[in-house]
Amino acid sequence: MSESAYVPAKIWKWDSENGGKFANINRPIAGATYDADLPVGKHPIQLYSLATPNGVKVTILLEELLALGIKEAEYDAFIINIMEGDQFSSGFVEVNPNSKIPALVDRSSKNPQPLFESGAILMYLAEKFDAFIPKHPAQRAQCLSWLFWQVGSGPYLGGGFGHFYAYAPEKFEYAIERFTMEVKRQLDVLDRHLADNKFMCGDEYTIADMAIWPWYGALVQNKVYEAAEFLQTHEYKNLVRWTEEMANRTAVKRGVMVNRSWGEPSEQLRERHDASDFELRTQDKLEDAE
Amino acid sequence: MSESAYVPAKIWKWDSENGGKFANINRPIAGATYDADLPVGKHPIQLYSLATPNGVKVTILLEELLALGIKEAEYDAFIINIMEGDQFSSGFVEVNPNSKIPALVDRSSKNPQPLFESGAILMYLAEKFDAFIPKHPAQRAQCLSWLFWQVGSGPYLGGGFGHFYAYAPEKFEYAIERFTMEVKRQLDVLDRHLADNKFMCGDEYTIADMAIWPWYGALVQNKVYEAAEFLQTHEYKNLVRWTEEMANRTAVKRGVMVNRSWGEPSEQLRERHDASDFELRTQDKLEDAE
Repeated sequence: MSESAYVPAKIWKWDSENGGKFANINRPIAGATYDADLPVGKHPIQLYSLATPNGVKVTILLEELLALGIKEAEYDAFIINIMEGDQFSSGFVEVNPNSKIPALVDRSSKNPQPLFESGAILMYLAEKFDAFIPKHPAQRAQCLSWLFWQVGSGPYLGGGFGHFYAYAPEKFEYAIERFTMEVKRQLDVLDRHLADNKFMCGDEYTIADMAIWPWYGALVQNKVYEAAEFLQTHEYKNLVRWTEEMANRTAVKRGVMVNRSWGEPSEQLRERHDASDFELRTQDKLEDAE
Repeated sequence: MSESAYVPAKIWKWDSENGGKFANINRPIAGATYDADLPVGKHPIQLYSLATPNGVKVTILLEELLALGIKEAEYDAFIINIMEGDQFSSGFVEVNPNSKIPALVDRSSKNPQPLFESGAILMYLAEKFDAFIPKHPAQRAQCLSWLFWQVGSGPYLGGGFGHFYAYAPEKFEYAIERFTMEVKRQLDVLDRHLADNKFMCGDEYTIADMAIWPWYGALVQNKVYEAAEFLQTHEYKNLVRWTEEMANRTAVKRGVMVNRSWGEPSEQLRERHDASDFELRTQDKLEDAE
């Protein structure tokens, strides 16, 4: 039967067999599926996340804040295994009713402050610590525009292109064409902008860079979807230049390791509770190389 | 030939024949396609937009600001016909290199300030006029979380569900199932939250409501995609309650008319240059009814 013979029902019904790679964690209803509290560490900030691009945005910012010497940005990072359904615990849902990583609780004041959505967490932390967000209204406006650009464009890359190119149970030509076209356009938007700008908001390194790099930098570095050749990402030379500059920052190197549960053991810091945790990993790396 | 026989090429090539309803305006490259300046009216704020849900977010906020008596929020709204390619003019691309509506220029200071992305424009205007964004850090954090939730979730509703359910050239079962599941989940997230909250951020009406209503309210009111029955939106009773309360606000009624180029003539205010423009339309409505 050809796809074109399909006619949607008048009223949609949940067929829990359908859904591809993430069928077991995709649900048409919200809310908790089991009772469990979230763990709480010793630091002011508690992060519940995973080293996907959306998770990495936040760990890069936290590591950049710590690199500036801001001790109040010390954090505990706990892993949320989304393939196992950790995002549906009552404790997680209380912090993020949307059941997606990352979620964060700021326990630095009497009333713990829950936050969800990576873009909101970046804004909140940048404003709280008055760093990586421009003070001048014009630059701030540009930073907001690019930060929201990433949040609104990312789903076409992740939930659109990535899903249909890499994860769907079949290769659906129409969907792959549709989302590839859009991702190529997005890559060109970034490349043209970075031709005239050192960072996304001019000379200032901001949360807009930290939001964009984990998605588009990973695409350029061929670390998601194995699509660099398909998309010819090397042609976007300004984007490649910026990707590499970002990748060389110590805080970025640390950020990508946190809450990572795949790849080489030396690249994983599944839980992060202290800056010295990274040094242990560096030690592992030396041992890996031996 | 079944869809499953398709194998993506090693390197993607642009086939400009493919793409469905929006094939003529979807491109894999960014930048302007022709030279033209944007028009400029007499007010401090210049809006270049269309009454799609993303456009309506901004016109609702501007009308709400004016309803508070904030005269500095006076604006000229020019229509950008995205089906005709207005978003690819050199003037528009200069304001928004991403070629999407809405875009805005704040000309109230010496250097005109360009902005793009509806979420960024909402944040910018709310902060500029110190309205519809909570001052208390806890409520502000909640408002940011829900504002970014909309921006990150909306593409699954618009570019995912809406495209495949209503606009794609064929009904692709897998894609419709995937995005319906997600939209049902989003509707349930909102419904559960609005069971305990008058507005998205508690008792305070904020830009989070103004971001969410144009998308999810329109779905409930069956004004986009004709999918209310398919999705059984009437079951989300708290969302229906909030949708109707929002729809009854004068500023919301005005906001949805601005830059609208479809529907009844009395519902359209294609360009908006003065508050009295709405009264002329009300006059039209009385005449329509005669």
